[in-house]
Amino acid sequence: MKLLEERILRDGYVKEGNVLKVDSFLNHQIDIELYNEMGREFRRLFPGDTITKILTIEVSGIGIACVAAQYFHVPVVFARKSHSINLDDDVYTARVQSYTHKREYDIIVSRRYLTGEDNVLIIDDFLANGCAVNGLLELVRGAGATVEGVGIAIEKGFQEGGRLLRGSGIRVESLAVVESMDAATGAVTFRRT
Amino acid sequence: MKLLEERILRDGYVKEGNVLKVDSFLNHQIDIELYNEMGREFRRLFPGDTITKILTIEVSGIGIACVAAQYFHVPVVFARKSHSINLDDDVYTARVQSYTHKREYDIIVSRRYLTGEDNVLIIDDFLANGCAVNGLLELVRGAGATVEGVGIAIEKGFQEGGRLLRGSGIRVESLAVVESMDAATGAVTFRRT
Repeated sequence: MKLLEERILRDGYVKEGNVLKVDSFLNHQIDIELYNEMGREFRRLFPGDTITKILTIEVSGIGIACVAAQYFHVPVVFARKSHSINLDDDVYTARVQSYTHKREYDIIVSRRYLTGEDNVLIIDDFLANGCAVNGLLELVRGAGATVEGVGIAIEKGFQEGGRLLRGSGIRVESLAVVESMDAATGAVTFRRT
Repeated sequence: MKLLEERILRDGYVKEGNVLKVDSFLNHQIDIELYNEMGREFRRLFPGDTITKILTIEVSGIGIACVAAQYFHVPVVFARKSHSINLDDDVYTARVQSYTHKREYDIIVSRRYLTGEDNVLIIDDFLANGCAVNGLLELVRGAGATVEGVGIAIEKGFQEGGRLLRGSGIRVESLAVVESMDAATGAVTFRRT
């Protein structure tokens, strides 16, 4: 998505440790017109009428998912992160390994809001190693729901998450796929398909 | 706002400890059409053209703020909760006392995204004791920004937050003000103005 790529080039910057900072428009301060165009693009990429729910994860996925959901006319459910063991029978749980923060946490979603009848589009802001998305997929499978696909704002194409997910047959659509980035020069290049 | 009140009566429920559960439509599963009507109503309540930014706080405020922001055509900034001391000079910090979770935490916002030029509308899902909103107000004041007002989805009118804020001269608009609720009977009544 040209608009997002141009914005990354203009306002994003690369930090040491493979970090792409986009907090001036995507995940601390939010350009709502950009979110709107992203939502429209997700709808173009997933035009089917079978999607019943959009699933995301707190924190940064929520705004993107909510704005996108307006184009799908389906509810959003966001998984919560939990740092304590959850013994509640009313939730589906998955364990997520965070590479960024070097720790594990659980994500949970209420059984009431994800069922075997659901056809789920997963939306998140970033895809790198795929840990969060894999956790969300585990929640979907736990509920007996079907995965329609995964919509990502920015994929780090040089990390393995996207390749592994696509290899397992899941449809992954990323609005911008970063092919390479360099903290020393600040250069960012995108994948051309 | 009649639509929200009716929804609370239909799908919300009261739990012991003054808890109003609305997670089937407001803050775990999200009815995006409802969010849209809420956003439209916030705009009706704050029609001025001086607002430059909507400020909210993770987690549950983000979706509401993003959908509302479409009617204001301004960016959203969300404050992050931090459980560790933050020594970063680039952020404004405020300490928030959480009555629900019986603990304190810091909220932070980057100095880059809140400045003395900003005229800020604060939006959040709940107002009870007003701790979160007061923290957000402290961030706004720290930045030298102006507060345009506070927009709340559900105010617990029997707790003191709303009264204290209004008493200090801040314009607070809540889409639904719960006058009383009873976990034993499940009854919820709303304030009539």
